[in-house]
Amino acid sequence: MADKPSVIRETDNEARELAKSLLREARFAAIGVLDPETGFPAVSRIILTTSDDGVPFILASTLAAHTQAILKDPRCSLLVGEPQDKGDPLVHPRMTVPCIAEKVAKDSDAHGRLRERFLTTHPKAKLYIDFGDFGFYRLVPQGAALNGGFGKAFLLTPADILG
Amino acid sequence: MADKPSVIRETDNEARELAKSLLREARFAAIGVLDPETGFPAVSRIILTTSDDGVPFILASTLAAHTQAILKDPRCSLLVGEPQDKGDPLVHPRMTVPCIAEKVAKDSDAHGRLRERFLTTHPKAKLYIDFGDFGFYRLVPQGAALNGGFGKAFLLTPADILG
Repeated sequence: MADKPSVIRETDNEARELAKSLLREARFAAIGVLDPETGFPAVSRIILTTSDDGVPFILASTLAAHTQAILKDPRCSLLVGEPQDKGDPLVHPRMTVPCIAEKVAKDSDAHGRLRERFLTTHPKAKLYIDFGDFGFYRLVPQGAALNGGFGKAFLLTPADILG
Repeated sequence: MADKPSVIRETDNEARELAKSLLREARFAAIGVLDPETGFPAVSRIILTTSDDGVPFILASTLAAHTQAILKDPRCSLLVGEPQDKGDPLVHPRMTVPCIAEKVAKDSDAHGRLRERFLTTHPKAKLYIDFGDFGFYRLVPQGAALNGGFGKAFLLTPADILG
């Protein structure tokens, strides 16, 4: 396979910076989970932000299908980098981030910090953030596939996109 | 569980119409597939349109990870309904559509019709639509979860969103 041209570019600092900014600036994203009943990959929309260590986290209700799914199987992925204009959606940079979901205990020190951070980014969440069925889930990146537009594909490590 | 309040509303024509318009007007979407190597649900961005029967279809390269995934396991899902403004992303209607992917044979009558239809919606695809590694895949809906905003959730059948 040595003569097969690779479509993956060698990771450079420009790719790392783009990846970090896509993740940190994302206010909403698509999340992919495994449907517990059918095994299908299911995609829905969530709002998110990142914590101090760069790890994304979401506020989610146990009434939501994606929450039930990650409680059953923590393997999930994020698609970040949303086109906010009418331009070509395949030119807009985006990144797929496979993650392992971890529930944040409500009585933990981390919970208070995440709550404050989340409200800074999503002030409207104040209306429901303390409801009993809502909680925080850290989505710990296992790697990333960055697509910076045609011919600009990179496979990144967690270290490339965090910190 | 009879006394547990359901968060799913009864399907009405307003929901069906919203669902059909979300699917038919989608020019790009997030697709969730099963990663053949890891089993993770992976989400990426694709451009799409619908055929005469309302079934969505995509133009995809065999070099793309999502194409390799659906060729291995045709179970996938679409998230349609993209916010195109700076408003609250959780207020914007969106819909998750679990689908079975079917490759369209290049020598079939359907191929020519889909090619014409795709170019009408995505004229820029003319640059690569005939490349050898590109092909059409029909994503046949198995149902749909419509979220019209807070408290407006519906579970729909294929008949509700097609035709």
